[in-house]
Amino acid sequence: MSDKILLRNCRFIITQDSRRRILENKSILIEGNRIIKVSSNIKAKKDYDVVDCSENVVMPGLINMHSHVPMNIMRGWAPGLELKEWLNQIFKREAKLTKKDVYLGSRDAFNEFIKSGVTTTVDMYFKIEEIYKAAVESGIRAFLGYGMIDLFNDDKKALEEGRTKEVVKFIRSKNNELIQPIVSPHAPNTCSKDLLIWSRKFADENKILLGIHAGETKGEVELIKRKHHRELTRFLDSIGLLDNSILFHGVHLDYNYIKKVGRKPSIVHCPSSNLKLKSGMLNVYDVVRSGSNLCLGTDGVASNNNLDLLEEMKIAAMLFKVHQIEGRFKDVFIDQFLIDAVTINPAKALKLNAGFIKEGKLADLTILSLNNHLSNSTKKTILNNIVYAANSSDVKTTIINGKKVYENKCL
Amino acid sequence: MSDKILLRNCRFIITQDSRRRILENKSILIEGNRIIKVSSNIKAKKDYDVVDCSENVVMPGLINMHSHVPMNIMRGWAPGLELKEWLNQIFKREAKLTKKDVYLGSRDAFNEFIKSGVTTTVDMYFKIEEIYKAAVESGIRAFLGYGMIDLFNDDKKALEEGRTKEVVKFIRSKNNELIQPIVSPHAPNTCSKDLLIWSRKFADENKILLGIHAGETKGEVELIKRKHHRELTRFLDSIGLLDNSILFHGVHLDYNYIKKVGRKPSIVHCPSSNLKLKSGMLNVYDVVRSGSNLCLGTDGVASNNNLDLLEEMKIAAMLFKVHQIEGRFKDVFIDQFLIDAVTINPAKALKLNAGFIKEGKLADLTILSLNNHLSNSTKKTILNNIVYAANSSDVKTTIINGKKVYENKCL
Repeated sequence: MSDKILLRNCRFIITQDSRRRILENKSILIEGNRIIKVSSNIKAKKDYDVVDCSENVVMPGLINMHSHVPMNIMRGWAPGLELKEWLNQIFKREAKLTKKDVYLGSRDAFNEFIKSGVTTTVDMYFKIEEIYKAAVESGIRAFLGYGMIDLFNDDKKALEEGRTKEVVKFIRSKNNELIQPIVSPHAPNTCSKDLLIWSRKFADENKILLGIHAGETKGEVELIKRKHHRELTRFLDSIGLLDNSILFHGVHLDYNYIKKVGRKPSIVHCPSSNLKLKSGMLNVYDVVRSGSNLCLGTDGVASNNNLDLLEEMKIAAMLFKVHQIEGRFKDVFIDQFLIDAVTINPAKALKLNAGFIKEGKLADLTILSLNNHLSNSTKKTILNNIVYAANSSDVKTTIINGKKVYENKCL
Repeated sequence: MSDKILLRNCRFIITQDSRRRILENKSILIEGNRIIKVSSNIKAKKDYDVVDCSENVVMPGLINMHSHVPMNIMRGWAPGLELKEWLNQIFKREAKLTKKDVYLGSRDAFNEFIKSGVTTTVDMYFKIEEIYKAAVESGIRAFLGYGMIDLFNDDKKALEEGRTKEVVKFIRSKNNELIQPIVSPHAPNTCSKDLLIWSRKFADENKILLGIHAGETKGEVELIKRKHHRELTRFLDSIGLLDNSILFHGVHLDYNYIKKVGRKPSIVHCPSSNLKLKSGMLNVYDVVRSGSNLCLGTDGVASNNNLDLLEEMKIAAMLFKVHQIEGRFKDVFIDQFLIDAVTINPAKALKLNAGFIKEGKLADLTILSLNNHLSNSTKKTILNNIVYAANSSDVKTTIINGKKVYENKCL
């Protein structure tokens, strides 16, 4: 197969450029792992792999900012429980996971992501070598972090730091452009202050991103108050974990404080998980107003129960409407915010040269069919329909790093 | 093709019988338009059409209780508006709809339903002859109602009544077992009291079901109070529209009153539409506790924006969690209520011999794949996963009245 792909005559291209242009009937030329041209006049040459996109929307590959891929083997586990009780059940199951379980769960999850148009995910778990293997086989772009939990125990802390060092070394030794490490202390209520401080330092020294669960439940805020005598957001700020951090959930953070001090964390909204486990209701407009970088994540399938990021956009929009109905803030049209939250915003958080469709960007692209949930869309309604109508059933082809990893609904 | 279909070795069968049994590794034999056997020992004969279901869940065909199928040609129309402003835009567009528009919109919608595993829908619109044609072509089971609106004008009332009589006569003259008429006054705030009373009488005399929008917005409740000096629910009761009626939306009804007087309306919850248009948040547990018959509907795609009833179950579950988070009532596990709301409850409302999987029932069945969003499901998690994980992308085959109208993802 040619290494040049021509996506010809795309009905709509959601460019996500600075003017958020939606192009009609233009073509995209991909060479190697890059987009090299977006134009109405690209002639197909003999060696091009030409894909007719006249009944498609082409958008930047969807970036999922929070997952636990091996959990796919426990989809819907412990139904009906709140986070704390649920986690007890999950921890019991996780204690028994074999390498093979982790590998199979990850493989299943990466396939599910790719079939949902997700081109990148940020994952936190353990037995990372197995996840790495599954990721490489699937062709997905991934940031893999070992979830450190020391439960305020010094011996455990040293072990967890050692494990993170090993994982980073392992991933870097592979020199695979698709897979990068991320430093992942589990959460402020499961890690000692020293481990959190070490994490920040290690991440900065090694130029690695840092991602952590933060502000998921009220219980976490209360525990931090008792343990460190500080409100959670201020505590995170005091140890350098607000700026330049990826905070998963962020339901119970103080966005007024974040705005006041001008920090710019990336906040990963996981509405399905937060609702299902009754953790709380993040107000995405609070996040946007605070100057934080709004991103979206599915979380793992034990608490969602799928990895359908397009569906997650609808859940996020619906939750936003709940806030609007209940008069929690003025009327804002958030469709574009949500599209940004799965493209340019996470690309910025991950320092990825992606999230836009333009020359020189990575060829990570999601191609949606206009023949089912997006039928009869116009330039005026296409964004609203991507947010409210589309789900993974509308994904036709997924391109990652210039390769079609899912084509015409086949892996 | 044989008229006997054997669904062999179904991994799970969601029977929806009185014990809500979930069967494992049993087979289903269909002859003509009926289920004739459910057992572990059904031998395939030469003329059977054998379908291996060892990687599938078979459940009763999903019944969607509220739609406006021609609206598929205006998917996502007027994004960002509330119901009143939105409706102004919609009415303008609808005034210009041609017969062809109505036919094409309906065709698109019925296909979308069938691809989503929906075997029956209850629709309200106009130009019913076009919708009828599209329905018959698609193979779906449908209840079609002409939406009567007299805006409190006597001349218009007579015209609307006449139109309903014509539509009922037209549908009955066709003698098509899949398509039935339904009497559909549009809403208490768009129909005169006399038209509503006529509707009830006409429906009863002709043994036809009656479906009406009711309690969709607070504005409607206020208008009824001003116009008829009664709270909406009591007003509906006074003209016989609580019992034996199908009430679409029902967000702002008084469920304590319904419980007190022991009426049994069918309430059609449409969470996506109600949230998107900021109409309000129905509490499904209020409906269940009141003794009403809880059903689920997508509404039309201008306010949803899709017809994915499986996804709608997740939205309903999420909205329920919002009520739980905000402490509006005690903790209830509603997965089974939501499965009931798309199977046995609507079948009861429609007096359909369906909604269960057992001998003698109509062969309306939805077959889901266990290879994507339902992977790794167990008997303990399958219901939770159908509610939270499955969407239309998991529908493999749809059987209506004993015919495979969608098979292996092909129409």
